[in-house]
Amino acid sequence: MASKNYPSPGRGVTLAGLARRLGGRRIEGDENLRIVGVATLEAGGPSQLGFVRGQPQAAALATSKLGAVIAPEGVACGARPVLRSANPSRDFARISALLHPRPRPPTGVHPRAFVAEDAELDATVSVGPLCSVGAGARIGPRSVLHAGATVADDVVIGADCLLHIGVLVCSGTRIGDRVILQPGCIIGGDGFGYEFDEQGRHEKVPQLGHVVLEDDVEVGAGAAIDRARLGATQIGRGVKIDNLVDIGHNVVIGEDAVLIAQSGVAGGAKLGARAFLMAQSGVGGQVELGDGTFVGARGGVIEDTAPGSRVWGFPALPERAWHRSQAVFARLAELLRRLRRLERHTGIGDEDGK
Amino acid sequence: MASKNYPSPGRGVTLAGLARRLGGRRIEGDENLRIVGVATLEAGGPSQLGFVRGQPQAAALATSKLGAVIAPEGVACGARPVLRSANPSRDFARISALLHPRPRPPTGVHPRAFVAEDAELDATVSVGPLCSVGAGARIGPRSVLHAGATVADDVVIGADCLLHIGVLVCSGTRIGDRVILQPGCIIGGDGFGYEFDEQGRHEKVPQLGHVVLEDDVEVGAGAAIDRARLGATQIGRGVKIDNLVDIGHNVVIGEDAVLIAQSGVAGGAKLGARAFLMAQSGVGGQVELGDGTFVGARGGVIEDTAPGSRVWGFPALPERAWHRSQAVFARLAELLRRLRRLERHTGIGDEDGK
Amino acid sequence: MASKNYPSPGRGVTLAGLARRLGGRRIEGDENLRIVGVATLEAGGPSQLGFVRGQPQAAALATSKLGAVIAPEGVACGARPVLRSANPSRDFARISALLHPRPRPPTGVHPRAFVAEDAELDATVSVGPLCSVGAGARIGPRSVLHAGATVADDVVIGADCLLHIGVLVCSGTRIGDRVILQPGCIIGGDGFGYEFDEQGRHEKVPQLGHVVLEDDVEVGAGAAIDRARLGATQIGRGVKIDNLVDIGHNVVIGEDAVLIAQSGVAGGAKLGARAFLMAQSGVGGQVELGDGTFVGARGGVIEDTAPGSRVWGFPALPERAWHRSQAVFARLAELLRRLRRLERHTGIGDEDGK
Repeated sequence: MASKNYPSPGRGVTLAGLARRLGGRRIEGDENLRIVGVATLEAGGPSQLGFVRGQPQAAALATSKLGAVIAPEGVACGARPVLRSANPSRDFARISALLHPRPRPPTGVHPRAFVAEDAELDATVSVGPLCSVGAGARIGPRSVLHAGATVADDVVIGADCLLHIGVLVCSGTRIGDRVILQPGCIIGGDGFGYEFDEQGRHEKVPQLGHVVLEDDVEVGAGAAIDRARLGATQIGRGVKIDNLVDIGHNVVIGEDAVLIAQSGVAGGAKLGARAFLMAQSGVGGQVELGDGTFVGARGGVIEDTAPGSRVWGFPALPERAWHRSQAVFARLAELLRRLRRLERHTGIGDEDGK
Repeated sequence: MASKNYPSPGRGVTLAGLARRLGGRRIEGDENLRIVGVATLEAGGPSQLGFVRGQPQAAALATSKLGAVIAPEGVACGARPVLRSANPSRDFARISALLHPRPRPPTGVHPRAFVAEDAELDATVSVGPLCSVGAGARIGPRSVLHAGATVADDVVIGADCLLHIGVLVCSGTRIGDRVILQPGCIIGGDGFGYEFDEQGRHEKVPQLGHVVLEDDVEVGAGAAIDRARLGATQIGRGVKIDNLVDIGHNVVIGEDAVLIAQSGVAGGAKLGARAFLMAQSGVGGQVELGDGTFVGARGGVIEDTAPGSRVWGFPALPERAWHRSQAVFARLAELLRRLRRLERHTGIGDEDGK
Repeated sequence: MASKNYPSPGRGVTLAGLARRLGGRRIEGDENLRIVGVATLEAGGPSQLGFVRGQPQAAALATSKLGAVIAPEGVACGARPVLRSANPSRDFARISALLHPRPRPPTGVHPRAFVAEDAELDATVSVGPLCSVGAGARIGPRSVLHAGATVADDVVIGADCLLHIGVLVCSGTRIGDRVILQPGCIIGGDGFGYEFDEQGRHEKVPQLGHVVLEDDVEVGAGAAIDRARLGATQIGRGVKIDNLVDIGHNVVIGEDAVLIAQSGVAGGAKLGARAFLMAQSGVGGQVELGDGTFVGARGGVIEDTAPGSRVWGFPALPERAWHRSQAVFARLAELLRRLRRLERHTGIGDEDGK
């Protein structure tokens, strides 16, 4: 099925050619075998390349019809041609990209799209059906808007960006180069800010800022990044944001940070470079995470962390402390029993603990 | 208001007619009473049917203007006509569906929709305004796309499917029959996968696979299901997915599983048939849940479970163990006091616990 | 950058004028200074106004180029002109709104939008490109639909509402005045309700109701509010809902309640007026929260609460009890050590706790 989505070139590439493109890899077996695509061990055929992570996976080769595999040195793969690699997972990803380039939609503006008169689109841009590009927007070379993407007024998008179907980019957003926006993500909604009026009711605080997505950022499906109250919500170069993540106003995220699915970052928080939020975790408002801070799944951080911290739980504890506490948590009923026995045998205290 | 959304047929159906359509139900009172719709006890009128779950709810009948009710045997409902049912909730749902069929939009492609030339749509398909259907897509009999639904290239949709407003279906997705996609759900975004390049930066792993939604699947508003790296993310027949649920790449979900709102399943996990994830719970990457596994609200499962397991908490514990530990958690301050008293009275240990 | 999104009037307003519009404020320095916009201390220029919360922030004034600031009485701001305020944050928000009004798109229906023939739009309504307005919909004076907003059949929208890009409003929704829908929010998807059929499979329960959003409600990006099974899901006047919040069918939320990002409310729950859900918290099905109930971040409430309750944790505990338990949780490994020492020294019990 994969080949349907991302068709591979007709004639393929020889194993020798693939090895060369990877910067040189040792080949065992027929180096002239032509490979037209990648596949799983289970579904692959004789002109496809598979990927063996280690000896346990290699067992599945017995029944596999794959033409060749990429595997680490030392993993026995039988008589099948093998590309040997110190990093087979990465090499496999690179061969995947090489053999299955994403199909590029035609250049130009689809007749069923709307582009404001004064929007400036590079001649190589592709705008799909039912897209909308607002006044004053600028879109750089080779960027692609798939069907139904909406780019509001005064948005700036760099080169080689990819906006999947139904992406929503609000006014004033600044997007660098090679940014990928997965379907339905929402960039630049208002931050959540209110004052109380004289009657004690909420009065909206204007959110005058915008969102900046630096180069090589990727944002997941349905994720939401709010514009700043003033200035910018700033997502640093190379930051990867997974599905349904929420990022509040004026958040600043350092380079190469990773935010896994359904995590959330409250307004004004700062995440250092290479911070890593596991799934369903959260960072409180104004909290600062040091570079490389790791937050475990479902962790909730409400105090600043030092660089390199590893924390879990809510409120977050250092990783080792949390693991220890969690291990005892699982035995709490036993602890209570033991405590009662001590009380009973010593005659100190009573069942009620008063 | 309900009748505005889902109008009922003008003349209605007699109680006798309703009883027959349910496969035979005992009627108390006037079996010739015409019922044109369903309603709550509070809002209903004399030609509407209500639903009484048990004797406590029946009290509200005193002030109700409803023409008739459906109720279990043995629940006193006064003089009002009653349809007696062993399963009044289900019977009421069926009568609701009978009397209030969803209005069907007109067959054909709305002039303000875009459908690619080579897309194959059954003649009975309905495509609403501002929908987009991509190249090579195929849509089966009687399926409906409401306004603004986007179906990308090479998507296959079966018969009698319902795509609500703003649904996003990415390229290559395979959808069975009678699938319901709630508004704004997102099927087929890229999985979240990266390798590190030679500079230690993230390098995107191509996500070449697709999503399969088998027959009778329903996906909630804003939920996101990622395509596979290779092969398919597979959602089994009858699986029901609630709002804002996230499902990672290559996840496989067995038949009739249920995923309640805001739960998440990380890449490569496998959920057995009839697995049940309560709200805001999560399943870790590659984890396998046995058939019928129940995960309590906010539970997070990071180890495989046996069929029929019931687990809560994070990391998840067996249900009973978690409840016990949680009960003691609520008394931890008391436990500490009792421990200190023991230490004080025995002279063993000190306040610092060193 | 802010001035790009929300341009300020060319000539600006004098400090004296601003003071007057705020209902009278004391000015230090040149009251004739013209202010054209607001800005941060770091980015502002000589014709812009900044905001100093207290003396610590005032230090940044040393290097600031701002023309004037608004500050509480008693905070030393040097020689710079100051507007003195007892509520500088709110006054600053009001000046922001005054100097940077949201740009209003042109009145009328964009030629690339679709509006059903029998929809009734006030002459002052603005409908952007690629919007869709269904049959029987009614939209009141000065309401704005930004690009790609979808309003389904029989929706009623009041005056002065703002629907941002890509908003999805399903059939039958009733929306009051001054309601703001952030981009991509989803109002009126089906509630999540099933019965089991005779084969033990899920059978959909028709969701015949609708959603009511009363005056002054705001709903965040990507948030989802389900329609009722019967009757209405009711969001009270002034309720503020943040991004990616999920609200189930038949939920009733009292006036001025606040639901922070990624929180969720299950079907049939009732939240009293001014209830406050912190981020990533949840409320169980049918649970009733008394007026003013506060639920801490990640709290999960499964039992009714009294008015004014403050609860944390899951299952939720009273705030003080949870804080105490949580404090002991962090020391559980130490507790176990102390318990073991007691057992060892007294000879009561053993390491296994049996």
